[in-house]
Amino acid sequence: MTTATRSHRIRLAPDQRRSQLLDLGVRLLATRSLDELSIDVLAEEAGISRGLLYHYFGGKQGFYEAVVQHAADDLFAQTAPPAGGEPLQRLHTSITAYVDYVQANHAGYRSLVKAAGGGNEALRAIYETTFEAMADRVFAQPDDAIIPDTPATRLLVRAWQSMVEDLVLSWCADPTPLTREELLHVITTSLPALVDTLP
Amino acid sequence: MTTATRSHRIRLAPDQRRSQLLDLGVRLLATRSLDELSIDVLAEEAGISRGLLYHYFGGKQGFYEAVVQHAADDLFAQTAPPAGGEPLQRLHTSITAYVDYVQANHAGYRSLVKAAGGGNEALRAIYETTFEAMADRVFAQPDDAIIPDTPATRLLVRAWQSMVEDLVLSWCADPTPLTREELLHVITTSLPALVDTLP
Repeated sequence: MTTATRSHRIRLAPDQRRSQLLDLGVRLLATRSLDELSIDVLAEEAGISRGLLYHYFGGKQGFYEAVVQHAADDLFAQTAPPAGGEPLQRLHTSITAYVDYVQANHAGYRSLVKAAGGGNEALRAIYETTFEAMADRVFAQPDDAIIPDTPATRLLVRAWQSMVEDLVLSWCADPTPLTREELLHVITTSLPALVDTLP
Repeated sequence: MTTATRSHRIRLAPDQRRSQLLDLGVRLLATRSLDELSIDVLAEEAGISRGLLYHYFGGKQGFYEAVVQHAADDLFAQTAPPAGGEPLQRLHTSITAYVDYVQANHAGYRSLVKAAGGGNEALRAIYETTFEAMADRVFAQPDDAIIPDTPATRLLVRAWQSMVEDLVLSWCADPTPLTREELLHVITTSLPALVDTLP
């Protein structure tokens, strides 16, 4: 509320203004699908004209890409594992943040998965890049890694991410089969269990 | 070839003719995406008019749904586990047939996943129904099951299917990280390994 009020009083640099509009877009996306987040909705919520929004984002597709990139950056930042600690505990902390993120942004996250899977190439690229960067974290500390970094384990981590996404989206839609702690335990321990199936 | 030649000579009942056209559609889909399989392509390959195809399928969406349902029925039939034998061995046989199917129908299968994920509700329903029926097989023989039938294990089997799909599609695009036998071993043994992570 304070930020919104202040934005009408002080003159912001274009970059700050754009960034503020992206923050608002991401907040609106938490409870809306991408289809429901139109330029019109954002213009109304931000109290500015559609023309100015087009000026900042260069059209509808540019606006969607900027908001989704901003949301992906948020997801990546929020799921950062702690610098120290035991590897499985670091993974557990990161997974906990991921589950929290998907729960808090269920509608927008589900629509991003849909858009990325359904052939919007720009959104697919943002999605793929984000999940590759998240996979890199699993291999980031080679001296202390849960699993070795090989082409085979890279393939398994990517498939495990698909499994986790499906599991968390299903669980958000109907959490009755598992408690939150059970869900976090299954996700964390399933990664080394999957890698252990390699002959 | 024999079938195509014969179809011009003998008069088929409408149901037989429709079924023959669906077989052709599924064969064409093996090396094409859904977008590339137009009514025009099928009409040309079948040597009949577009008008007649519209008559059989009631429009473009009806045609896609009929072809995809036919392909899904094929997938389901081909991945049937053997009636007897040890549970993990039955699963291994079924998985082998699934990998063979995805490899032989890579383009069409990938485009189905994309259409189902991207918001075509009719194709999504066919996809979901098929994978639910495939999940049911895991629980079909309660006296001799690999895993118990509970809401939690149902959730895990669905997530495991997502993982398997991602893994097999990635492997078809680039099979270098794993041999075929390694892939089949990982897929088969990862299901009980995943269920074992349940607290």
